[in-house]
Amino acid sequence: MGNESPDKTPGRSVTGKALSILGAFTPARPELRLVEISRITGLPEPTAHRLAGELVAWGALERLRDGTYRIGLRLWEVGSLSPRSRTLREIARPFMQDLYEVTRENVHLAVLRDSQVLYVEKYFGPRSIRVPTHIGERLPLHSTGAGKVLLAFSPPALQDRVLHGALRRFTPATIVMPGTLSRALVNVRRTGMATCVEELTMGALSVAAPIYDANRTVVAALSLVMRSSGGHPDRMGPAVRTAAQGISRELARCPVPLGGTA
Amino acid sequence: MGNESPDKTPGRSVTGKALSILGAFTPARPELRLVEISRITGLPEPTAHRLAGELVAWGALERLRDGTYRIGLRLWEVGSLSPRSRTLREIARPFMQDLYEVTRENVHLAVLRDSQVLYVEKYFGPRSIRVPTHIGERLPLHSTGAGKVLLAFSPPALQDRVLHGALRRFTPATIVMPGTLSRALVNVRRTGMATCVEELTMGALSVAAPIYDANRTVVAALSLVMRSSGGHPDRMGPAVRTAAQGISRELARCPVPLGGTA
Repeated sequence: MGNESPDKTPGRSVTGKALSILGAFTPARPELRLVEISRITGLPEPTAHRLAGELVAWGALERLRDGTYRIGLRLWEVGSLSPRSRTLREIARPFMQDLYEVTRENVHLAVLRDSQVLYVEKYFGPRSIRVPTHIGERLPLHSTGAGKVLLAFSPPALQDRVLHGALRRFTPATIVMPGTLSRALVNVRRTGMATCVEELTMGALSVAAPIYDANRTVVAALSLVMRSSGGHPDRMGPAVRTAAQGISRELARCPVPLGGTA
Repeated sequence: MGNESPDKTPGRSVTGKALSILGAFTPARPELRLVEISRITGLPEPTAHRLAGELVAWGALERLRDGTYRIGLRLWEVGSLSPRSRTLREIARPFMQDLYEVTRENVHLAVLRDSQVLYVEKYFGPRSIRVPTHIGERLPLHSTGAGKVLLAFSPPALQDRVLHGALRRFTPATIVMPGTLSRALVNVRRTGMATCVEELTMGALSVAAPIYDANRTVVAALSLVMRSSGGHPDRMGPAVRTAAQGISRELARCPVPLGGTA
Protein backbone atom coordinates (compact mmCIF):
# COMPACT_ATOMS: atom_id res chain seq x y z
CA MET A 1 0.00 0.00 0.00
CA GLY A 2 1.03 3.60 -0.45
CA ASN A 3 2.27 4.15 3.05
CA GLU A 4 4.39 1.04 3.45
CA SER A 5 7.72 2.24 2.10
CA PRO A 6 9.98 3.83 4.71
CA ASP A 7 10.73 7.46 4.13
CA LYS A 8 14.49 7.60 4.43
CA THR A 9 14.91 11.19 3.27
CA PRO A 10 17.93 12.39 5.24
CA GLY A 11 16.52 15.87 5.78
CA ARG A 12 13.22 14.56 7.12
CA SER A 13 11.76 16.96 9.70
CA VAL A 14 10.63 16.00 13.19
CA THR A 15 7.01 16.29 12.08
CA GLY A 16 7.78 14.07 9.10
CA LYS A 17 9.33 11.50 11.41
CA ALA A 18 6.33 11.51 13.76
CA LEU A 19 3.97 11.15 10.78
CA SER A 20 6.06 8.30 9.38
CA ILE A 21 5.38 6.43 12.65
CA LEU A 22 1.63 6.83 12.14
CA GLY A 23 2.04 5.71 8.52
CA ALA A 24 3.77 2.51 9.66
CA PHE A 25 0.39 1.15 10.84
CA THR A 26 -1.71 -0.51 8.11
CA PRO A 27 -4.71 -2.86 8.07
CA ALA A 28 -2.24 -5.73 7.65
CA ARG A 29 -0.25 -4.65 10.70
CA PRO A 30 -2.45 -2.65 13.07
CA GLU A 31 -0.23 -3.38 16.09
CA LEU A 32 3.53 -2.81 16.13
CA ARG A 33 6.38 -3.23 18.59
CA LEU A 34 9.03 -0.52 18.87
CA VAL A 35 11.61 -2.56 16.95
CA GLU A 36 9.14 -2.94 14.06
CA ILE A 37 8.32 0.78 14.06
CA SER A 38 12.04 1.48 13.91
CA ARG A 39 12.56 -0.94 11.03
CA ILE A 40 9.59 0.28 8.98
CA THR A 41 10.27 4.00 9.43
CA GLY A 42 14.05 3.82 9.29
CA LEU A 43 14.21 5.79 12.55
CA PRO A 44 16.74 4.80 15.21
CA GLU A 45 15.02 3.07 18.14
CA PRO A 46 15.65 5.88 20.67
CA THR A 47 14.13 8.43 18.25
CA ALA A 48 11.16 6.16 17.51
CA HIS A 49 10.68 5.59 21.24
CA ARG A 50 10.68 9.30 22.05
CA LEU A 51 8.31 10.24 19.21
CA ALA A 52 5.99 7.29 19.91
CA GLY A 53 5.84 8.48 23.53
CA GLU A 54 4.70 11.92 22.37
CA LEU A 55 2.10 10.36 20.09
CA VAL A 56 0.84 8.24 23.01
CA ALA A 57 0.67 11.30 25.29
CA TRP A 58 -1.55 13.09 22.76
CA GLY A 59 -3.70 10.03 22.06
CA ALA A 60 -2.64 9.37 18.46
CA LEU A 61 -1.21 6.03 19.61
CA GLU A 62 -2.05 3.69 22.48
CA ARG A 63 0.57 1.59 24.23
CA LEU A 64 -0.52 -1.81 25.47
CA ARG A 65 0.78 -3.37 28.67
CA ASP A 66 3.04 -5.69 26.66
CA GLY A 67 4.70 -2.68 24.98
CA THR A 68 2.87 -3.00 21.65
CA TYR A 69 1.61 0.19 20.03
CA ARG A 70 -1.64 0.67 18.14
CA ILE A 71 -3.57 3.63 16.71
CA GLY A 72 -5.43 5.59 19.38
CA LEU A 73 -9.07 6.57 19.50
CA ARG A 74 -8.23 10.28 19.37
CA LEU A 75 -6.76 9.88 15.89
CA TRP A 76 -9.98 8.20 14.75
CA GLU A 77 -11.95 11.04 16.31
CA VAL A 78 -9.94 13.73 14.54
CA GLY A 79 -9.77 11.69 11.31
CA SER A 80 -13.57 11.39 11.34
CA LEU A 81 -13.69 15.13 10.61
CA SER A 82 -12.33 14.51 7.11
CA PRO A 83 -15.14 15.70 4.81
CA ARG A 84 -14.33 13.01 2.30
CA SER A 85 -15.34 10.46 4.90
CA ARG A 86 -17.69 12.41 7.20
CA THR A 87 -19.80 14.51 4.82
CA LEU A 88 -19.82 11.87 2.13
CA ARG A 89 -20.78 9.05 4.49
CA GLU A 90 -23.41 11.03 6.36
CA ILE A 91 -25.10 11.90 3.10
CA ALA A 92 -24.67 8.46 1.54
CA ARG A 93 -25.77 6.27 4.43
CA PRO A 94 -29.56 6.55 4.11
CA PHE A 95 -29.30 5.79 0.37
CA MET A 96 -26.97 2.86 1.07
CA GLN A 97 -29.36 1.54 3.68
CA ASP A 98 -32.26 1.69 1.21
CA LEU A 99 -30.22 -0.24 -1.34
CA TYR A 100 -29.23 -2.80 1.28
CA GLU A 101 -32.81 -3.31 2.41
CA VAL A 102 -33.99 -3.88 -1.14
CA THR A 103 -31.16 -6.24 -2.10
CA ARG A 104 -29.76 -7.64 1.20
CA GLU A 105 -26.40 -7.58 -0.57
CA ASN A 106 -23.07 -5.77 0.01
CA VAL A 107 -23.39 -2.03 -0.56
CA HIS A 108 -20.10 -0.12 -0.72
CA LEU A 109 -19.07 3.51 -0.73
CA ALA A 110 -15.54 4.02 -2.03
CA VAL A 111 -13.14 6.82 -2.91
CA LEU A 112 -9.89 7.08 -4.86
CA ARG A 113 -6.77 6.99 -2.69
CA ASP A 114 -3.36 6.99 -4.36
CA SER A 115 -3.90 4.44 -7.13
CA GLN A 116 -6.33 2.28 -5.22
CA VAL A 117 -9.96 2.16 -4.17
CA LEU A 118 -10.51 2.94 -0.46
CA TYR A 119 -13.75 1.70 1.11
CA VAL A 120 -15.19 4.32 3.46
CA GLU A 121 -18.57 2.73 4.20
CA LYS A 122 -20.20 -0.67 3.82
CA TYR A 123 -23.58 -2.25 4.49
CA PHE A 124 -24.01 -5.99 4.44
CA GLY A 125 -25.88 -8.70 6.29
CA PRO A 126 -25.95 -12.41 7.04
CA ARG A 127 -27.47 -13.18 3.63
CA SER A 128 -24.88 -11.16 1.64
CA ILE A 129 -22.07 -12.93 -0.21
CA ARG A 130 -18.77 -12.64 1.68
CA VAL A 131 -16.32 -10.36 -0.15
CA PRO A 132 -12.87 -9.10 0.92
CA THR A 133 -13.90 -5.46 1.43
CA HIS A 134 -13.52 -3.69 4.76
CA ILE A 135 -14.09 -0.10 5.86
CA GLY A 136 -10.75 1.72 5.86
CA GLU A 137 -9.09 -0.82 3.59
CA ARG A 138 -8.09 -0.70 -0.07
CA LEU A 139 -8.28 -2.85 -3.20
CA PRO A 140 -6.95 -2.40 -6.74
CA LEU A 141 -8.82 -0.21 -9.20
CA HIS A 142 -8.85 -2.59 -12.16
CA SER A 143 -10.55 -5.56 -10.48
CA THR A 144 -13.46 -3.92 -8.63
CA GLY A 145 -16.64 -2.24 -9.83
CA ALA A 146 -16.07 0.83 -7.67
CA GLY A 147 -12.44 0.94 -8.81
CA LYS A 148 -13.37 0.90 -12.49
CA VAL A 149 -15.77 3.80 -11.93
CA LEU A 150 -13.16 5.85 -10.06
CA LEU A 151 -10.51 5.04 -12.66
CA ALA A 152 -12.78 5.85 -15.62
CA PHE A 153 -13.36 9.37 -14.29
CA SER A 154 -9.82 9.99 -12.95
CA PRO A 155 -7.20 12.26 -14.57
CA PRO A 156 -5.56 10.81 -17.71
CA ALA A 157 -2.15 10.64 -15.98
CA LEU A 158 -3.51 8.25 -13.35
CA GLN A 159 -5.31 6.17 -16.00
CA ASP A 160 -2.05 5.85 -17.94
CA ARG A 161 -0.16 4.83 -14.81
CA VAL A 162 -2.70 2.14 -13.90
CA LEU A 163 -3.15 0.89 -17.49
CA HIS A 164 0.58 0.52 -17.95
CA GLY A 165 1.39 -0.70 -14.48
CA ALA A 166 1.09 -4.26 -13.20
CA LEU A 167 -2.52 -5.46 -13.51
CA ARG A 168 -2.63 -8.21 -10.92
CA ARG A 169 -4.68 -11.29 -11.77
CA PHE A 170 -7.10 -12.44 -9.04
CA THR A 171 -9.33 -14.79 -11.04
CA PRO A 172 -9.42 -16.06 -14.64
CA ALA A 173 -11.79 -13.16 -15.43
CA THR A 174 -9.59 -10.35 -14.07
CA ILE A 175 -8.77 -7.85 -16.83
CA VAL A 176 -4.98 -7.86 -17.14
CA MET A 177 -4.64 -6.48 -20.70
CA PRO A 178 -4.32 -2.66 -20.88
CA GLY A 179 -6.32 -2.52 -24.15
CA THR A 180 -9.23 -4.46 -22.69
CA LEU A 181 -9.24 -2.33 -19.54
CA SER A 182 -9.09 0.87 -21.60
CA ARG A 183 -12.16 -0.23 -23.62
CA ALA A 184 -13.95 -1.16 -20.38
CA LEU A 185 -13.31 2.38 -19.07
CA VAL A 186 -14.74 3.95 -22.23
CA ASN A 187 -17.82 1.83 -21.64
CA VAL A 188 -18.08 3.00 -18.02
CA ARG A 189 -18.05 6.64 -19.15
CA ARG A 190 -20.61 5.91 -21.88
CA THR A 191 -23.07 3.97 -19.72
CA GLY A 192 -22.48 5.71 -16.39
CA MET A 193 -21.89 2.40 -14.64
CA ALA A 194 -19.27 -0.32 -14.26
CA THR A 195 -19.69 -4.04 -13.86
CA CYS A 196 -17.28 -6.67 -12.60
CA VAL A 197 -18.12 -10.33 -13.08
CA GLU A 198 -15.92 -12.60 -10.96
CA GLU A 199 -12.91 -10.35 -11.61
CA LEU A 200 -11.85 -10.19 -7.96
CA THR A 201 -13.83 -12.96 -6.22
CA MET A 202 -15.22 -16.08 -7.86
CA GLY A 203 -18.99 -16.17 -7.55
CA ALA A 204 -19.32 -12.41 -7.04
CA LEU A 205 -20.75 -9.81 -9.39
CA SER A 206 -20.54 -6.08 -8.81
CA VAL A 207 -22.31 -3.09 -10.28
CA ALA A 208 -21.04 0.43 -9.55
CA ALA A 209 -21.98 4.02 -10.38
CA PRO A 210 -20.25 7.39 -9.93
CA ILE A 211 -21.11 9.96 -7.26
CA TYR A 212 -20.61 13.62 -8.22
CA ASP A 213 -20.08 16.74 -6.11
CA ALA A 214 -21.44 20.23 -6.82
CA ASN A 215 -18.72 20.81 -9.46
CA ARG A 216 -19.74 17.60 -11.30
CA THR A 217 -16.43 16.07 -10.23
CA VAL A 218 -16.63 12.33 -9.50
CA VAL A 219 -15.71 12.12 -5.81
CA ALA A 220 -16.80 8.57 -4.96
CA ALA A 221 -18.40 5.39 -6.26
CA LEU A 222 -21.35 3.39 -5.00
CA SER A 223 -21.23 -0.34 -5.63
CA LEU A 224 -23.41 -3.35 -5.04
CA VAL A 225 -21.75 -6.77 -4.82
CA MET A 226 -23.94 -9.88 -5.04
CA ARG A 227 -23.76 -13.52 -6.06
CA SER A 228 -23.05 -13.83 -9.77
CA SER A 229 -25.50 -16.75 -9.91
CA GLY A 230 -28.39 -14.73 -8.52
CA GLY A 231 -27.99 -11.29 -10.02
CA HIS A 232 -27.66 -9.59 -13.35
CA PRO A 233 -26.15 -6.15 -14.00
CA ASP A 234 -29.12 -5.14 -16.14
CA ARG A 235 -31.46 -5.77 -13.25
CA MET A 236 -29.37 -4.12 -10.51
CA GLY A 237 -27.74 -1.31 -12.49
CA PRO A 238 -30.73 1.05 -12.40
CA ALA A 239 -31.07 0.65 -8.61
CA VAL A 240 -27.39 1.44 -8.02
CA ARG A 241 -27.44 4.40 -10.42
CA THR A 242 -30.61 5.77 -8.83
CA ALA A 243 -29.10 5.63 -5.34
CA ALA A 244 -25.82 7.17 -6.60
CA GLN A 245 -27.76 10.00 -8.20
CA GLY A 246 -29.63 10.63 -4.97
CA ILE A 247 -26.34 10.93 -3.11
CA SER A 248 -24.94 13.26 -5.80
CA ARG A 249 -28.02 15.47 -5.57
CA GLU A 250 -27.63 15.81 -1.80
CA LEU A 251 -23.87 16.36 -2.11
CA ALA A 252 -24.43 19.20 -4.57
CA ARG A 253 -26.00 21.16 -1.71
CA CYS A 254 -22.70 21.11 0.23
CA PRO A 255 -21.16 24.58 0.41
CA VAL A 256 -17.63 23.27 -0.18
CA PRO A 257 -17.25 20.70 -2.97
CA LEU A 258 -15.50 17.56 -1.70
CA GLY A 259 -13.10 17.55 -4.63
CA GLY A 260 -12.05 21.15 -4.08
CA THR A 261 -8.55 20.79 -2.67
CA ALA A 262 -5.73 22.91 -4.04
CA MET B 1 -14.33 19.55 24.45
CA GLY B 2 -11.04 18.14 25.66
CA ASN B 3 -8.99 19.29 22.72
CA GLU B 4 -10.18 22.87 22.55
CA SER B 5 -7.83 24.56 24.98
CA PRO B 6 -4.60 25.78 23.41
CA ASP B 7 -1.54 24.07 24.75
CA LYS B 8 0.71 26.95 25.59
CA THR B 9 3.38 24.89 27.38
CA PRO B 10 6.58 26.77 26.62
CA GLY B 11 8.65 23.60 26.21
CA ARG B 12 6.22 22.06 23.74
CA SER B 13 8.07 19.87 21.23
CA VAL B 14 7.75 20.11 17.45
CA THR B 15 5.64 16.95 17.45
CA GLY B 16 3.45 18.44 20.15
CA LYS B 17 3.00 21.57 18.07
CA ALA B 18 2.06 19.59 14.95
CA LEU B 19 -0.41 17.52 16.98
CA SER B 20 -1.91 20.66 18.50
CA ILE B 21 -2.75 21.77 14.95
CA LEU B 22 -4.66 18.54 14.35
CA GLY B 23 -6.39 18.99 17.71
CA ALA B 24 -7.59 22.45 16.68
CA PHE B 25 -10.15 20.84 14.36
CA THR B 26 -13.43 19.80 16.03
CA PRO B 27 -16.93 18.89 14.81
CA ALA B 28 -17.94 22.50 15.54
CA ARG B 29 -15.07 23.88 13.43
CA PRO B 30 -14.03 21.28 10.83
CA GLU B 31 -12.44 23.92 8.55
CA LEU B 32 -9.92 26.50 9.73
CA ARG B 33 -7.94 29.34 8.22
CA LEU B 34 -4.29 29.79 9.15
CA VAL B 35 -5.01 32.74 11.43
CA GLU B 36 -7.55 30.62 13.34
CA ILE B 37 -5.11 27.72 13.67
CA SER B 38 -2.56 30.15 15.02
CA ARG B 39 -5.02 31.62 17.52
CA ILE B 40 -6.33 28.24 18.75
CA THR B 41 -2.93 26.57 19.08
CA GLY B 42 -1.02 29.60 20.33
CA LEU B 43 1.59 29.01 17.59
CA PRO B 44 3.02 32.01 15.70
CA GLU B 45 1.60 32.15 12.16
CA PRO B 46 4.89 31.31 10.39
CA THR B 47 5.32 28.20 12.59
CA ALA B 48 1.69 27.17 12.06
CA HIS B 49 2.10 27.71 8.31
CA ARG B 50 5.23 25.56 8.10
CA LEU B 51 3.81 22.71 10.21
CA ALA B 52 0.44 22.81 8.40
CA GLY B 53 2.37 22.51 5.13
CA GLU B 54 4.06 19.36 6.39
CA LEU B 55 0.73 17.94 7.53
CA VAL B 56 -0.73 18.69 4.08
CA ALA B 57 2.23 17.03 2.35
CA TRP B 58 1.64 13.84 4.34
CA GLY B 59 -2.14 13.93 3.88
CA ALA B 60 -3.15 14.62 7.49
CA LEU B 61 -4.63 17.94 6.34
CA GLU B 62 -6.04 19.15 3.03
CA ARG B 63 -5.71 22.74 1.88
CA LEU B 64 -8.59 24.16 -0.14
CA ARG B 65 -8.13 26.61 -3.00
CA ASP B 66 -9.28 29.46 -0.76
CA GLY B 67 -6.53 28.67 1.75
CA THR B 68 -8.79 26.93 4.29
CA TYR B 69 -7.47 23.77 5.92
CA ARG B 70 -9.46 20.66 6.79
CA ILE B 71 -8.67 17.14 8.00
CA GLY B 72 -7.35 14.90 5.22
CA LEU B 73 -8.57 11.49 4.15
CA ARG B 74 -5.25 9.86 5.09
CA LEU B 75 -5.80 10.74 8.74
CA TRP B 76 -9.22 9.08 8.60
CA GLU B 77 -7.63 6.04 6.97
CA VAL B 78 -4.95 5.69 9.65
CA GLY B 79 -7.41 6.59 12.42
CA SER B 80 -9.73 3.82 11.21
CA LEU B 81 -7.11 1.35 12.44
CA SER B 82 -7.89 2.25 16.06
CA PRO B 83 -9.19 -1.00 17.56
CA ARG B 84 -11.60 0.90 19.77
CA SER B 85 -13.34 2.05 16.62
CA ARG B 86 -12.45 -0.64 14.05
CA THR B 87 -12.68 -3.89 16.00
CA LEU B 88 -15.56 -2.70 18.12
CA ARG B 89 -17.56 -1.39 15.17
CA GLU B 90 -16.91 -4.38 12.93
CA ILE B 91 -18.15 -6.69 15.63
CA ALA B 92 -21.05 -4.51 16.70
CA ARG B 93 -22.50 -3.62 13.31
CA PRO B 94 -24.45 -6.80 12.53
CA PHE B 95 -26.03 -6.69 16.01
CA MET B 96 -26.82 -3.01 15.59
CA GLN B 97 -28.38 -3.68 12.21
CA ASP B 98 -30.60 -6.40 13.70
CA LEU B 99 -31.74 -4.01 16.43
CA TYR B 100 -32.41 -1.30 13.84
CA GLU B 101 -34.44 -3.63 11.64
CA VAL B 102 -36.59 -4.74 14.55
CA THR B 103 -37.17 -1.24 15.93
CA ARG B 104 -36.52 1.18 13.03
CA GLU B 105 -35.16 3.53 15.69
CA ASN B 106 -31.74 5.12 16.41
CA VAL B 107 -29.17 2.53 17.43
CA HIS B 108 -25.93 3.94 18.86
CA LEU B 109 -22.53 2.53 19.74
CA ALA B 110 -20.59 4.80 22.08
CA VAL B 111 -17.36 4.84 24.07
CA LEU B 112 -15.97 6.93 26.92
CA ARG B 113 -13.68 9.74 25.79
CA ASP B 114 -12.30 12.16 28.37
CA SER B 115 -15.42 12.87 30.44
CA GLN B 116 -17.89 12.56 27.58
CA VAL B 117 -19.64 9.96 25.47
CA LEU B 118 -18.21 9.60 21.95
CA TYR B 119 -20.48 8.07 19.31
CA VAL B 120 -18.52 5.68 17.08
CA GLU B 121 -21.39 4.12 15.12
CA LYS B 122 -25.04 4.84 14.47
CA TYR B 123 -27.92 3.25 12.60
CA PHE B 124 -31.09 5.19 11.92
CA GLY B 125 -33.66 5.62 9.20
CA PRO B 126 -36.37 7.93 7.91
CA ARG B 127 -38.83 6.69 10.56
CA SER B 128 -36.45 7.22 13.50
CA ILE B 129 -36.86 10.20 15.82
CA ARG B 130 -34.25 12.89 15.07
CA VAL B 131 -31.67 13.16 17.85
CA PRO B 132 -28.47 15.27 18.05
CA THR B 133 -26.04 12.32 17.84
CA HIS B 134 -23.43 12.03 15.10
CA ILE B 135 -20.63 9.57 14.46
CA GLY B 136 -17.38 11.07 15.73
CA GLU B 137 -19.14 13.58 17.98
CA ARG B 138 -19.60 13.75 21.73
CA LEU B 139 -22.32 14.45 24.28
CA PRO B 140 -22.33 14.72 28.08
CA LEU B 141 -22.39 11.55 30.18
CA HIS B 142 -25.16 12.53 32.60
CA SER B 143 -27.88 13.25 30.04
CA THR B 144 -27.65 10.26 27.68
CA GLY B 145 -28.44 6.57 28.13
CA ALA B 146 -25.07 5.48 26.75
CA GLY B 147 -23.35 8.09 28.91
CA LYS B 148 -25.01 6.85 32.09
CA VAL B 149 -23.90 3.29 31.32
CA LEU B 150 -20.30 4.37 30.65
CA LEU B 151 -20.27 6.56 33.76
CA ALA B 152 -21.77 3.85 35.98
CA PHE B 153 -18.94 1.46 35.12
CA SER B 154 -16.12 4.04 35.00
CA PRO B 155 -13.40 4.49 37.66
CA PRO B 156 -14.59 6.19 40.89
CA ALA B 157 -12.34 9.21 40.24
CA LEU B 158 -14.15 9.98 36.99
CA GLN B 159 -17.54 9.45 38.62
CA ASP B 160 -16.59 11.91 41.36
CA ARG B 161 -15.42 14.45 38.80
CA VAL B 162 -18.63 14.24 36.79
CA LEU B 163 -20.93 14.11 39.83
CA HIS B 164 -19.32 17.20 41.32
CA GLY B 165 -18.77 19.07 38.07
CA ALA B 166 -21.34 21.17 36.25
CA LEU B 167 -24.34 19.02 35.28
CA ARG B 168 -25.78 20.99 32.39
CA ARG B 169 -29.55 21.12 32.09
CA PHE B 170 -30.94 20.32 28.62
CA THR B 171 -34.60 19.71 29.48
CA PRO B 172 -36.74 19.89 32.64
CA ALA B 173 -36.01 16.16 33.13
CA THR B 174 -32.20 16.38 32.94
CA ILE B 175 -30.64 15.11 36.17
CA VAL B 176 -28.66 18.03 37.59
CA MET B 177 -28.48 16.94 41.26
CA PRO B 178 -25.38 14.84 42.12
CA GLY B 179 -27.32 12.72 44.62
CA THR B 180 -30.01 11.84 42.08
CA LEU B 181 -27.39 10.99 39.45
CA SER B 182 -25.45 8.88 41.93
CA ARG B 183 -28.60 6.85 42.75
CA ALA B 184 -29.30 6.48 39.03
CA LEU B 185 -25.81 5.03 38.53
CA VAL B 186 -26.33 2.50 41.33
CA ASN B 187 -29.49 1.48 39.53
CA VAL B 188 -27.62 1.08 36.24
CA ARG B 189 -25.11 -1.26 37.88
CA ARG B 190 -27.91 -3.21 39.59
CA THR B 191 -30.10 -3.66 36.50
CA GLY B 192 -27.42 -3.76 33.80
CA MET B 193 -29.15 -1.03 31.83
CA ALA B 194 -29.73 2.71 31.81
CA THR B 195 -32.73 4.70 30.75
CA CYS B 196 -33.09 8.36 29.87
CA VAL B 197 -36.56 9.84 29.50
CA GLU B 198 -36.47 13.25 27.80
CA GLU B 199 -33.27 14.13 29.65
CA LEU B 200 -31.46 15.40 26.54
CA THR B 201 -34.17 15.79 23.89
CA MET B 202 -37.89 16.36 24.53
CA GLY B 203 -39.92 13.50 23.12
CA ALA B 204 -37.01 11.03 23.12
CA LEU B 205 -36.48 8.00 25.32
CA SER B 206 -33.27 6.00 25.41
CA VAL B 207 -32.35 2.59 26.74
CA ALA B 208 -28.69 1.56 26.97
CA ALA B 209 -26.65 -1.46 28.05
CA PRO B 210 -22.94 -2.09 28.67
CA ILE B 211 -20.59 -3.92 26.28
CA TYR B 212 -17.75 -5.89 27.92
CA ASP B 213 -14.40 -7.05 26.56
CA ALA B 214 -12.64 -10.34 27.37
CA ASN B 215 -11.49 -8.96 30.75
CA ARG B 216 -15.10 -8.07 31.67
CA THR B 217 -14.17 -4.39 31.42
CA VAL B 218 -16.96 -2.18 30.10
CA VAL B 219 -15.53 -0.80 26.85
CA ALA B 220 -18.62 0.63 25.18
CA ALA B 221 -22.38 1.11 25.44
CA LEU B 222 -25.18 0.20 23.07
CA SER B 223 -28.21 2.46 23.11
CA LEU B 224 -31.57 2.67 21.43
CA VAL B 225 -33.27 6.05 21.18
CA MET B 226 -36.93 6.18 20.27
CA ARG B 227 -40.01 8.39 20.72
CA SER B 228 -41.00 8.59 24.38
CA SER B 229 -44.65 8.43 23.32
CA GLY B 230 -44.26 5.15 21.47
CA GLY B 231 -41.77 3.17 23.52
CA HIS B 232 -41.29 1.92 27.03
CA PRO B 233 -37.95 0.92 28.62
CA ASP B 234 -39.45 -2.33 29.89
CA ARG B 235 -40.34 -3.35 26.38
CA MET B 236 -37.08 -2.32 24.68
CA GLY B 237 -34.60 -3.05 27.49
CA PRO B 238 -34.38 -6.80 26.87
CA ALA B 239 -33.70 -6.28 23.13
CA VAL B 240 -30.90 -3.78 23.80
CA ARG B 241 -29.37 -5.96 26.51
CA THR B 242 -29.54 -9.03 24.29
CA ALA B 243 -27.76 -7.26 21.42
CA ALA B 244 -25.14 -5.81 23.83
CA GLN B 245 -24.50 -9.28 25.20
CA GLY B 246 -24.03 -10.66 21.69
CA ILE B 247 -21.45 -7.98 20.97
CA SER B 248 -19.67 -8.70 24.28
CA ARG B 249 -19.57 -12.41 23.50
CA GLU B 250 -17.95 -11.76 20.11
CA LEU B 251 -15.55 -9.20 21.61
CA ALA B 252 -14.39 -11.74 24.20
CA ARG B 253 -12.87 -13.73 21.34
CA CYS B 254 -10.50 -10.84 20.49
CA PRO B 255 -6.91 -11.73 21.32
CA VAL B 256 -6.18 -8.25 22.73
CA PRO B 257 -8.82 -6.81 25.06
CA LEU B 258 -9.92 -3.37 23.91
CA GLY B 259 -9.50 -1.92 27.39
CA GLY B 260 -5.95 -3.22 27.71
CA THR B 261 -3.89 -0.06 27.37
CA ALA B 262 -1.04 0.59 29.78
